[in-house]
Amino acid sequence: MTRVGVNGYGTIGKRVADAVAAQPDMVLRGVAKRSPNHEADSAVQRGYALYAADSDRLGEFEHAGLPLAGTLPDLLDSVDVIVDCCPAGVGARNRERYASHDVRAVFQGGEAANVADASFTARTSFETARDADTVRVVSCNTTGLARLLAPLDEAYGVEKARVTLVRRGGDPAQTDRGPINDIVPDPATVPSHHGPDVRTVLPEVDIDTAALKAPVTAMHTHSVNVSLGAAPTADEVRELLARESRLFLIPEVAGIDGAGKLKEYALDCGRPRGDLWENCLWAESISVSGTDLYLFQNVHQEADVVPENIDAIRAMTTDIPVDESVTRTNEALGVGL
Amino acid sequence: MTRVGVNGYGTIGKRVADAVAAQPDMVLRGVAKRSPNHEADSAVQRGYALYAADSDRLGEFEHAGLPLAGTLPDLLDSVDVIVDCCPAGVGARNRERYASHDVRAVFQGGEAANVADASFTARTSFETARDADTVRVVSCNTTGLARLLAPLDEAYGVEKARVTLVRRGGDPAQTDRGPINDIVPDPATVPSHHGPDVRTVLPEVDIDTAALKAPVTAMHTHSVNVSLGAAPTADEVRELLARESRLFLIPEVAGIDGAGKLKEYALDCGRPRGDLWENCLWAESISVSGTDLYLFQNVHQEADVVPENIDAIRAMTTDIPVDESVTRTNEALGVGL
Amino acid sequence: MTRVGVNGYGTIGKRVADAVAAQPDMVLRGVAKRSPNHEADSAVQRGYALYAADSDRLGEFEHAGLPLAGTLPDLLDSVDVIVDCCPAGVGARNRERYASHDVRAVFQGGEAANVADASFTARTSFETARDADTVRVVSCNTTGLARLLAPLDEAYGVEKARVTLVRRGGDPAQTDRGPINDIVPDPATVPSHHGPDVRTVLPEVDIDTAALKAPVTAMHTHSVNVSLGAAPTADEVRELLARESRLFLIPEVAGIDGAGKLKEYALDCGRPRGDLWENCLWAESISVSGTDLYLFQNVHQEADVVPENIDAIRAMTTDIPVDESVTRTNEALGVGL
Amino acid sequence: MTRVGVNGYGTIGKRVADAVAAQPDMVLRGVAKRSPNHEADSAVQRGYALYAADSDRLGEFEHAGLPLAGTLPDLLDSVDVIVDCCPAGVGARNRERYASHDVRAVFQGGEAANVADASFTARTSFETARDADTVRVVSCNTTGLARLLAPLDEAYGVEKARVTLVRRGGDPAQTDRGPINDIVPDPATVPSHHGPDVRTVLPEVDIDTAALKAPVTAMHTHSVNVSLGAAPTADEVRELLARESRLFLIPEVAGIDGAGKLKEYALDCGRPRGDLWENCLWAESISVSGTDLYLFQNVHQEADVVPENIDAIRAMTTDIPVDESVTRTNEALGVGL
Ligand SMILES: NC(=O)c1ccc[n+]([C@@H]2O[C@H](COP(=O)([O-])OP(=O)(O)OC[C@H]3O[C@@H](n4cnc5c(N)ncnc54)[C@H](O)[C@@H]3O)[C@@H](O)[C@H]2O)c1
Ligand SMILES: NC(=O)c1ccc[n+]([C@@H]2O[C@H](COP(=O)([O-])OP(=O)(O)OC[C@H]3O[C@@H](n4cnc5c(N)ncnc54)[C@H](O)[C@@H]3O)[C@@H](O)[C@H]2O)c1
Ligand SMILES: NC(=O)c1ccc[n+]([C@@H]2O[C@H](COP(=O)([O-])OP(=O)(O)OC[C@H]3O[C@@H](n4cnc5c(N)ncnc54)[C@H](O)[C@@H]3O)[C@@H](O)[C@H]2O)c1
Ligand SMILES: NC(=O)c1ccc[n+]([C@@H]2O[C@H](COP(=O)([O-])OP(=O)(O)OC[C@H]3O[C@@H](n4cnc5c(N)ncnc54)[C@H](O)[C@@H]3O)[C@@H](O)[C@H]2O)c1
Repeated sequence: MTRVGVNGYGTIGKRVADAVAAQPDMVLRGVAKRSPNHEADSAVQRGYALYAADSDRLGEFEHAGLPLAGTLPDLLDSVDVIVDCCPAGVGARNRERYASHDVRAVFQGGEAANVADASFTARTSFETARDADTVRVVSCNTTGLARLLAPLDEAYGVEKARVTLVRRGGDPAQTDRGPINDIVPDPATVPSHHGPDVRTVLPEVDIDTAALKAPVTAMHTHSVNVSLGAAPTADEVRELLARESRLFLIPEVAGIDGAGKLKEYALDCGRPRGDLWENCLWAESISVSGTDLYLFQNVHQEADVVPENIDAIRAMTTDIPVDESVTRTNEALGVGL
Repeated sequence: MTRVGVNGYGTIGKRVADAVAAQPDMVLRGVAKRSPNHEADSAVQRGYALYAADSDRLGEFEHAGLPLAGTLPDLLDSVDVIVDCCPAGVGARNRERYASHDVRAVFQGGEAANVADASFTARTSFETARDADTVRVVSCNTTGLARLLAPLDEAYGVEKARVTLVRRGGDPAQTDRGPINDIVPDPATVPSHHGPDVRTVLPEVDIDTAALKAPVTAMHTHSVNVSLGAAPTADEVRELLARESRLFLIPEVAGIDGAGKLKEYALDCGRPRGDLWENCLWAESISVSGTDLYLFQNVHQEADVVPENIDAIRAMTTDIPVDESVTRTNEALGVGL
Repeated sequence: MTRVGVNGYGTIGKRVADAVAAQPDMVLRGVAKRSPNHEADSAVQRGYALYAADSDRLGEFEHAGLPLAGTLPDLLDSVDVIVDCCPAGVGARNRERYASHDVRAVFQGGEAANVADASFTARTSFETARDADTVRVVSCNTTGLARLLAPLDEAYGVEKARVTLVRRGGDPAQTDRGPINDIVPDPATVPSHHGPDVRTVLPEVDIDTAALKAPVTAMHTHSVNVSLGAAPTADEVRELLARESRLFLIPEVAGIDGAGKLKEYALDCGRPRGDLWENCLWAESISVSGTDLYLFQNVHQEADVVPENIDAIRAMTTDIPVDESVTRTNEALGVGL
Repeated sequence: MTRVGVNGYGTIGKRVADAVAAQPDMVLRGVAKRSPNHEADSAVQRGYALYAADSDRLGEFEHAGLPLAGTLPDLLDSVDVIVDCCPAGVGARNRERYASHDVRAVFQGGEAANVADASFTARTSFETARDADTVRVVSCNTTGLARLLAPLDEAYGVEKARVTLVRRGGDPAQTDRGPINDIVPDPATVPSHHGPDVRTVLPEVDIDTAALKAPVTAMHTHSVNVSLGAAPTADEVRELLARESRLFLIPEVAGIDGAGKLKEYALDCGRPRGDLWENCLWAESISVSGTDLYLFQNVHQEADVVPENIDAIRAMTTDIPVDESVTRTNEALGVGL
């Protein structure tokens, strides 16, 4: 049993905690949090041991009636792996602390690549993470792109990928994020940093990305073009991608036209939080003209990195092969639509 | 065991089906649907017997690989109560059909009040529904207002209620609904029809409503003013309302500032579909100046009528008292935050 | 000729500058700005003398190729009145500076009431501003409420006004403002500060306000209830309000259903920037039940305070009577739809 | 003087009417409209002769107090060219009528290409329109793409263009259009019809387009990739594009980050209706990697086709060369930022 802690219990942290708790070969020793808000409350309701991330805010937790199991150092003393889910940049500041407690650490995609020994998705980098003390699970967009490009590259060769990312302005609970009634080039320079981030896990792939920010909260949308090294039919591509366990091909008959219906479908299927751990590709959008592949995919920014975090833990702490880890993760979570 | 069927398996229908299936004293005999889309598919996945609403579309279901248990008349022959969750106005056209099969029927708030013998919320109209063959559960906004006004009227007397409803433009999955970047008076005439609808369940209450439509999908927001017959303190009102099982007073410390965080909280609590069956009132918004009470509440349009449908079924088919029915419904669903 | 300068050339400042430039009895001596962006550029294009607000940023203007007429002190030396249109709170910090140059100052509604000798709308407070060295034009929402309540109070007496303000989340060019897909109680406490602000210009009026923030940029929407001291017919109220030069009653036949069509109408009428200097009231929304008046009005946050700034200047610097000032302002701008 | 009429006085029609009225060599004989709403009212206010499109609705105009100059046939009898700006598809139904009155006709991009003898943008198809009795000005998106691709193709050769169109959900006044909080693949199939439409004016260009629909009203956003036949520097491309009179390169120093600030800038410059007749390209987004060009551009759907309509009229009715026509149109309107 790998003993795991989560530091930072927000959008990603709470999902990683649930996912760890669902694994047969892992045990969640607790979660650390800074502020005693409704999320801290729900951690307690779920029966997770709650640790204060800052020792000087113990009083606030007490005041809010939230029982603490200790502070972050206590949690670090009791785990093999800590998953850092703090806001972007905070992970880098925590790194020394984890090392000094001699625990392995998984960081998130908001950190720079050099925060860790290796960048990670299960599909592309499982073996690279084997000997690592620290691993960075790449961002939601990068994860979504890597999962798509890896099988294409293996099957046909990717000459060049060109992707427009229409990013959600904020997560559903973030009321301080815009824009309203605007599509904002962000960054205004092209290509964006997302392409280089993909190359941290798929170093050989040539990819240019352009990013926009839109007044939506549910998912990112990718408009994808890939110049392939071969000229498969659209059906062949569909079959290839349908074989990937973390790609969901939205069937045309389903009548699913956007993120709203996708999340509705996830909730109809009983998914906790309506999470879509899979890339969601519109099957009818997949088309090939010559060697040029086109498609639309949606990525649930809150969820797609969650199974990757689980696999990262296994890669670092066990010698379970990648396929078995992915299968275990998928089964424990219910990945696959 | 009351045998129940659901006709119309959309936003409301699927939730009512789940809620019926969760009751210890009811059995869901099946759901009827018109089109074999992803919702039909998820009904099958949940193990619900699926009936075709139209006998001339059987081929479409077969084509989609969706196994049918029969057509609507078959379902009607096997139930004591049918819950009609068809689009607004379709229920009225179905009424004769239900009567001819001699089944009791529950209609939704999109129908005119005269579709049924009685309009219903558990808090206001349980006994009225006792002898009824047909009952109409009032709309999401009306349910939310009745739940709030009933205890206020009992405790202090409601001299006059004035409510501005900022309504969601469409449900999350409805991509064809606007407005974008606009707040639309809808109807432009004041008072709106919502006030009279409240009087179908609280006939004695004097209420004027004004309605707007906004570019949001998650919840309705009510800005409420009530001129009371007494001058309680805000704390007394808070205590009064906190005692109601289907009112949730959002504590100030929770840091919940809008519908996004409310739904997040519901999902964090493990609620299926993130459903908020309770009115959600901002505790800090509750204020009294003289005899004038003010507050903000949010209503989850997809969910608040669901427990009411369950209680309506019990009122029509059993002699269980209102308190016991409400308690059973609440416990089976998990109402109460 | 009153010599006027504008300090702070943003949303409000540029409109005030245009309005001053349009008055036959005023001369715009220049505008002061902090950053040499596209707004500074358009000031130069309009032929306005441009002053640097900060003497340490002269180089930036030079670098951007924007010719400067001097710095703020130079502008202050050449005017009778400075209109401060800096971001909320900055005006208070500028006050001493204006006093030391012995110029009269007009502040905006983002400042606290005590920034100036008097708070102002032309309809309510023209005479109060006569002897003032400093005047604060109240905010867009307060201006809109005062214009509406003043004639109602005079004609019938206002027993109590209760208003829900559905505020725009940000101005059209503000991409960093939210919310997305949410209606946020802001402030969550009721009543909001808008009521007390109305009383700075209508001290005798009893008003409670509740404020929400919505994902729109074009206008604020007010849902208004007024308990009157009399029981006029809706038509009588319509006639009363139609006589006010800064209230526009949207005729039912116009087919104008929201802010989008209102702005379209303003642009169709050739209004610069599509500005609506008038409150826009839906004529068909005006209704009376007993002594309770209801109506919806929209307020163009960027524009309604602009004619008030002009009248404030005349009140402070001339002995022109209020009616003549308002008529002059209206004619020079084209107020009246 | 070319005598021009406009049939259909909506978003496009009113702009074309204003543009015709502004030309020294054209005279606007009148506009025809179906319904006597606020737009008809503003046509009268502008002094345009108003004609009823339907002879059976004369009473409605009279009732609304709108003076009519006659009906559509009267207008057709008095013009050389009619510009049809009716809703998509209505133009095709009007075609015979125009022919029977022996007037030349300009149609809009909502019609199928075969509605007219030639499809048109001034940059690509001026000579083609010379002998045509009927011309179709291509849609806003197609116009924006053709203006960009034509100079690139001339200078470097376009091997392949790949464009993602993030389209506005509705125009600012259209409250019945969605989506809310969703980015919808529309059409879900790739490539979309926009590519083939570009080839009606640039037959030789190889272009694939993918289209999304977003909850915004102000502009369309294009994420553009072009594989060129040469490898210019980004600066060379900037210089090339800056020479085109209907392309506006947004300078980086302007601080313009999206459609909101673009429209603000247009209004600051005194543009009527805030119209942006030019493609708006973010200068800093223009980048070249190898022979791959990337950039973002925004297209003001309500405005970019307006100067094209004017040039189409000149191409059909005069022998003025293209450059002179474009210059005249630009000067009369004020095109060029
Ligand atoms: N939200 C997304 O869409 C998304 C997707 C993929 C990756 N990520 C990455 O995941 C990481 C976390 O993002 P998130 O969206 O979950 O953020 P979040 O703001 O939702 O959650 C961060 C949590 O960390 C807590 N926290 C803040 N400072 C802390 C500290 N010093 N110690 C302990 N806890 C602290 C906060 O209270 C909060 O609970 C970031 O690197 C982000 O870039 C986010
Ligand atoms: N969505 C809400 O916010 C909400 C809230 C409260 C009450 N209501 C009311 O509930 C009722 C249902 O609304 P909804 O939002 O669930 O609608 P919906 O459109 O989501 O679902 C309606 C379902 O009925 C099916 N249907 C259509 N015609 C049918 C027929 N003839 N026979 C059988 N099935 C048919 C549709 O396929 C769909 O599955 C309406 O009266 C509505 O006013 C809706
Ligand atoms: N925008 C509205 O809806 C609105 C409506 C009514 C009243 N107001 C009030 O008007 C005032 C101005 O608001 P706004 O919306 O025009 O703001 P804004 O941000 O659009 O413009 C402010 C301008 O002031 C400049 N500036 C900043 N600091 C400065 C300084 N120290 N000296 C000189 N210039 C400086 C900025 O560069 C900018 O050009 C505020 O008090 C605000 O509350 C705003
Ligand atoms: N709005 C855009 O973004 C845009 C951009 C480029 C091209 N177009 C195209 O321009 C055309 C007009 O579109 P629009 O957006 O201006 O439409 P619109 O709906 O704004 O205006 C159409 C006008 O035509 C009138 N009308 C309707 N039926 C008529 C009839 N039978 N006879 C005369 N008038 C009639 C309507 O009353 C309305 O005033 C369409 O082909 C459209 O595809 C629109």
